[in-house]
Amino acid sequence: MALDPVDLTSRLIACPSITPHEAGTLTLMTEWLEPMGFECHHLVSGERPDGPVENLIAIRKGAGNGPHLAFAGHVDVVPPGEGWDGDPFVPRIEDGQLIGRGATDMKGALGAFVAALDGWQQDKGTLSLLITGDEEGPAVHGTRAIVDWLEERSIGLDYCLIGEPSSQERLGDTVKNGRRGSVNVWLTLEGHQGHVAYPQLADNPLPKMARLVAALDAMELDEGTDMFQPSNLEFTAIGGGDGTTNVIPGKASAQFNIRFNDLQKGEDLVRRIEEMAEEIAPGTKVLAKISGEAFLTPEGKLTETLADAIEQEVGIRPRLSTGGGTSDGRFLHKLCPVAEFGLPNATMHKVGERAAVADIEKLSMIYRRCLEIFFA
Amino acid sequence: MALDPVDLTSRLIACPSITPHEAGTLTLMTEWLEPMGFECHHLVSGERPDGPVENLIAIRKGAGNGPHLAFAGHVDVVPPGEGWDGDPFVPRIEDGQLIGRGATDMKGALGAFVAALDGWQQDKGTLSLLITGDEEGPAVHGTRAIVDWLEERSIGLDYCLIGEPSSQERLGDTVKNGRRGSVNVWLTLEGHQGHVAYPQLADNPLPKMARLVAALDAMELDEGTDMFQPSNLEFTAIGGGDGTTNVIPGKASAQFNIRFNDLQKGEDLVRRIEEMAEEIAPGTKVLAKISGEAFLTPEGKLTETLADAIEQEVGIRPRLSTGGGTSDGRFLHKLCPVAEFGLPNATMHKVGERAAVADIEKLSMIYRRCLEIFFA
Repeated sequence: MALDPVDLTSRLIACPSITPHEAGTLTLMTEWLEPMGFECHHLVSGERPDGPVENLIAIRKGAGNGPHLAFAGHVDVVPPGEGWDGDPFVPRIEDGQLIGRGATDMKGALGAFVAALDGWQQDKGTLSLLITGDEEGPAVHGTRAIVDWLEERSIGLDYCLIGEPSSQERLGDTVKNGRRGSVNVWLTLEGHQGHVAYPQLADNPLPKMARLVAALDAMELDEGTDMFQPSNLEFTAIGGGDGTTNVIPGKASAQFNIRFNDLQKGEDLVRRIEEMAEEIAPGTKVLAKISGEAFLTPEGKLTETLADAIEQEVGIRPRLSTGGGTSDGRFLHKLCPVAEFGLPNATMHKVGERAAVADIEKLSMIYRRCLEIFFA
Repeated sequence: MALDPVDLTSRLIACPSITPHEAGTLTLMTEWLEPMGFECHHLVSGERPDGPVENLIAIRKGAGNGPHLAFAGHVDVVPPGEGWDGDPFVPRIEDGQLIGRGATDMKGALGAFVAALDGWQQDKGTLSLLITGDEEGPAVHGTRAIVDWLEERSIGLDYCLIGEPSSQERLGDTVKNGRRGSVNVWLTLEGHQGHVAYPQLADNPLPKMARLVAALDAMELDEGTDMFQPSNLEFTAIGGGDGTTNVIPGKASAQFNIRFNDLQKGEDLVRRIEEMAEEIAPGTKVLAKISGEAFLTPEGKLTETLADAIEQEVGIRPRLSTGGGTSDGRFLHKLCPVAEFGLPNATMHKVGERAAVADIEKLSMIYRRCLEIFFA
């Protein structure tokens, strides 16, 4: 009996694999992939509190010396939150929708891809699945550990397809061929506390921080490119003082995030911020954490294969996009060109997450068509 | 036996009269003043949580039709805080210092003034003591209620001496002949929460608030006058966001205080702030609370009387000052010229508050000399 993508997805949803718990998902994946000839490696990485994280690397070498295509994905899901009708880890189908945490992001894609492999064997080249258990969390011991593992063994990839829910309005309308980079920055400025009636005895850090916030916010980073929207700096918090009306506080803080395109490098941005802080509010401490650089996969074999497969199965040609948040593509693009394609993302991370049964089935057919075109 | 100002002060300190509790202080004052011919009125005002507050109005009419001089003060003290050697409400003398909460601010002045009255009777004019139990707290049901009480009875004042600790380095160096006004302002700006990766779907209030803070801080209000330092605006808090790095917060807030001189009016300042907020960060809500207008008592009979009395008793001529925080002078100056003179203020509101025994005794002599000169 052929593997059913909706059944496989449901069985994955039934495992409450909230990051960093794999909760049985990797055992299922292994049980499905080993009989198909995949060599399965369980990679456990990291320690508390961010780990240990369990990851799965499944590799099937073909006869010929063809390219190595990897399918990347994650079994972990974000916490369900409150307000579900029923148990978020008991999958159910209602009005043609498969409901449960992870249906869209991205157990549906895992089920679809594994089902697509059923009864199919590439003749030449290598196919692998790189499955992490920590994409939704700190992402320190997941795909990064997989990349290290591959590099240690000199296993090269030629192309990587990530099953993230890239579709917007309908399945197939969008393929992501890049992502913006992201950096978080924390600013702190110490002053000198005092009484409002005697400001000459104090050093108020609040107006200095406000001027720095205003200046950073006014900074135009770039105007974007054909494939990327302009880089954007967005403040997420500002603070200082405890509400007392007669005390000048001794400390001010602010934090912001920059989503940047491939005209920028994280380190260069941090340097600019440090210079601006030193100019406008000297003494400000700048702590920066670059969570990923921007990357872009030019149109080519991978994007063409995906577009052709989508067009053949659902009759529309996808647009290429670099919008939205970050993904594990930020780690994988170092190895090879990366593109992302998966289910419509309207309900991802939300209460009542769901995917249309028909979409999961069509996605599986698109993935199968991809493999056929790619390894033709 | 003559009344001893240090003994009277000690007996007042022994009453733990943290605002709004009079804790027996007014009973003591009444017991001391009634035998001297003062008509004592207990004025209870207000309800929970700011009240009820007990106040004392003691009036002694002289024979002639001379001026009415009021001595104003408060029996309440700020909470002692942690870290005292011994009980802050058990007065003790160490190395010539009377130690206890309120020694300086301002039970020392009350003891000194009552002792100064001992065996003395003005021939003409009226002398009164206006004693509030709520100067350190919200100050809603204290001196304001006393002012109302006087106005209802058409009792006019010609001059008012407040016993606040005005001296700086040594007793007699400073008389306060005015105070700056004070207004507290709270700013809040609502935006629209969202994800940092999709700023076009959000409306970030933080940079707008930062620009408004920077603009308000840069505002030059005035350059001061001969008697007043420049008006000053000081931010005391700014806030927005809860520390989450990927969420654009939906709300920003800030608060500040302005200490302003007699070139400004509280209402005009608030109007300017509202205009600036509407220009720079439209939609900002401005909540303002004017706690007092600036006032200035020109040099004249009251300041001259004080200066002469001080010079005769301790050999220095005080400088006139309008510095520092607010006092109940903000309410009393509506009735008549007001000046403040009392003990050195180095330890007021602090742990280990104390006053030199010799200073309390000399202050009592200065007050007595004041009365003699004033009613001569």
